Amino acid sequence: MKIGLLIIGNEILEGKINDANTRQLAQFLIKENLDLSMTMTVKDQEKMIHQGLSTLFNQCDIVLTSGGLGPTKDDLTKETIATWLGRKVQYSDQAFAIATKNYQRFNRPFAGKDHGYCFLPEGFEALENTTGFAPGLLAKHGEKFLISGPGVPREFKSLLDDHFVSKVLTHFSRPQQLVELYTVRTMRIPEEKIFGEVDKTLWDKLSEFGNVSSLPTIMGVDIGVKLIAGSSQELEESKQALKKIFQSSPIFPNIWQFGSTPLEDFIVMKANAKKVKYGFAESCTGGLCSHRITSVSGSSQSFFGSVVCYDESVKENTLGVKKETLAKFGAVSAETAEEMANGVAKNLNLDVAISITGLAGPNGGTPEKPVGTAFIGVYALGKTQVHHVHFPGDREQLKMRFSQAALYHLLEEMEKNA
Amino acid sequence: MKIGLLIIGNEILEGKINDANTRQLAQFLIKENLDLSMTMTVKDQEKMIHQGLSTLFNQCDIVLTSGGLGPTKDDLTKETIATWLGRKVQYSDQAFAIATKNYQRFNRPFAGKDHGYCFLPEGFEALENTTGFAPGLLAKHGEKFLISGPGVPREFKSLLDDHFVSKVLTHFSRPQQLVELYTVRTMRIPEEKIFGEVDKTLWDKLSEFGNVSSLPTIMGVDIGVKLIAGSSQELEESKQALKKIFQSSPIFPNIWQFGSTPLEDFIVMKANAKKVKYGFAESCTGGLCSHRITSVSGSSQSFFGSVVCYDESVKENTLGVKKETLAKFGAVSAETAEEMANGVAKNLNLDVAISITGLAGPNGGTPEKPVGTAFIGVYALGKTQVHHVHFPGDREQLKMRFSQAALYHLLEEMEKNA
Repeated sequence: MKIGLLIIGNEILEGKINDANTRQLAQFLIKENLDLSMTMTVKDQEKMIHQGLSTLFNQCDIVLTSGGLGPTKDDLTKETIATWLGRKVQYSDQAFAIATKNYQRFNRPFAGKDHGYCFLPEGFEALENTTGFAPGLLAKHGEKFLISGPGVPREFKSLLDDHFVSKVLTHFSRPQQLVELYTVRTMRIPEEKIFGEVDKTLWDKLSEFGNVSSLPTIMGVDIGVKLIAGSSQELEESKQALKKIFQSSPIFPNIWQFGSTPLEDFIVMKANAKKVKYGFAESCTGGLCSHRITSVSGSSQSFFGSVVCYDESVKENTLGVKKETLAKFGAVSAETAEEMANGVAKNLNLDVAISITGLAGPNGGTPEKPVGTAFIGVYALGKTQVHHVHFPGDREQLKMRFSQAALYHLLEEMEKNA
Repeated sequence: MKIGLLIIGNEILEGKINDANTRQLAQFLIKENLDLSMTMTVKDQEKMIHQGLSTLFNQCDIVLTSGGLGPTKDDLTKETIATWLGRKVQYSDQAFAIATKNYQRFNRPFAGKDHGYCFLPEGFEALENTTGFAPGLLAKHGEKFLISGPGVPREFKSLLDDHFVSKVLTHFSRPQQLVELYTVRTMRIPEEKIFGEVDKTLWDKLSEFGNVSSLPTIMGVDIGVKLIAGSSQELEESKQALKKIFQSSPIFPNIWQFGSTPLEDFIVMKANAKKVKYGFAESCTGGLCSHRITSVSGSSQSFFGSVVCYDESVKENTLGVKKETLAKFGAVSAETAEEMANGVAKNLNLDVAISITGLAGPNGGTPEKPVGTAFIGVYALGKTQVHHVHFPGDREQLKMRFSQAALYHLLEEMEKNA
């Protein structure tokens, strides 16, 4: 069974927004042991949408479309699907009922039966949209299926969750195989170095178990092996064997997780389990470390808070960094980082505190302390250590890399403290 | 001239990462008065890459590919381009020289002439990569062009910046037209309401000047009109006429910018111009407001700092929120928001301070204060006002919407204070 996605939207091809539905659909399909075969992105133009439908239906058994179902005049998806099939767009009681209900949910009056939401290509079924206004649509096309949802990621996701299995996948017979992506996450080592220098035979060894993939992330690489097994015992045996390979590899010290949990979630889980009270003193990351941690539900159990100390006066008055330290060593220095970590630990009453001060650029660099330089202070159990780092990149990348380096140190503390 | 992008990468179709190169390419082309016609995303498989190349070359004059040039065994782009063209992959002195230089830049020894980086399809030119290791590649294909870069967004961008105009676009004659996307940004009003209720004739009036687009953003809508003009005078006249239409529209009070500057940049610009010292007391946004502001270069001129006060003890001890206030009204209340704003303004010595306390969920809601509720305190010139908001969404969306609401209030203060 091949599945394709047609993304319809000028706003994507004009660079205003990134498509987020490819990823949502892919993640949805993986849970169903299915693959996304291909995607195309075309403009809100009849000819291009026709081209996209033809290409995808030539290759795929199920074609989804996202976008172009909205109320404005550049939304052409329904009309264009109709012309591609040689059908008309017509009023649908079902679509009217769905749209009316959606407006009620948002306490808004619905314009009535003239509204574009009530019209569908002939022979299509209107699908409930539990998170927005526009109904989705669905039809069988020969032995194939066409299902269309709004481009708004939340609404596209609810279309998948509410209808895709029950209205589409149920019509296909599917192999009873277990599929799992076995993932290990490494830190502080580039992809090049892992497979080209540190463990040259690793890729081949892993390949005996399934397709190997290598995904560079911020300052680390995720290594994946796609396991396909006939039984859960077979799957378990492969996972054990893979684990042994990694444990005896020279890259073992760089592995921070056997699994694919995001770093933030992993830290929150460890911190909550050990009841470690923690927080940050953030200068160059400007709140990003705290934002990443608080993106995790449950972080409030142990994450206490942070001080974003952009101006020197905040470092001095709120964190107690000494005026002499700032004058003698500068705001970007090991000495300031140490006092920042100690200050936030004391003021917020923390068990573990991470400070970071550096140069995110593009201005402010010097020959001794170029843009990309940062100092990370790690306070734990009354002691503070400072680490010096230097990364390449623009402001956005540097903030991300600085925060990643800070979170890696935080993770190490969580794993150290009993 | 039609331009297409072939995105090659299992990691995108497996939902591990979002493609970012469509957006980069689109934004690059807009500056050159060109359009991105379409994109396709396919797996790292010979058959699928062939399919993508055929589809795109059928439609486009220039085809770019991103991804699959790396050193690992799932990187098949070069081999597959060669087989699609019926050519061989062969050693290239030029590619060897580029790869050697790239390794020197990162202070790493290069493996030598056997390394995959040194091999290209016959007849291809190797392109310098100033931000990574793998050389790009370029060839003429009939009257058309094929140019391939790494999938890493930074490297793909430097390929565009360094080579796309000089090696590809220069071979095409291009119309001498002025193209500009005229944009206004609105806040606190949904797309539906703008065109369906508040100003039903707006879309048609704008359409007389060019293609109209409407892009919903967080809690606001960007309205765009694509202007194409033969002279800068003609362009200027259209812009003046459009401005008058918007100024006399009932949506005028919702317009916060004639232009397309991001909200963060717009605030930093205003704050720096007026030398307003500002900061945040962030509970439910957990650092996101500060992170968004500090993503802007130059923010350090006026953004002083923030306190992320997740735990009640931080609200109390660092911000001076009274124990009785927390006990009587709760951490999520107008009273706490007011004391948070006052506390951070006092402690960090700010002219303007924004506080926010709310429920980002998924847990913690009550019938009186459901998830999505927040209170925003706005301190300026010694006075504090509190606003109550309630939004739908999951944790990630709520943090974003809360921060957006807070930043809108901050912007209003920046525009108010003389």
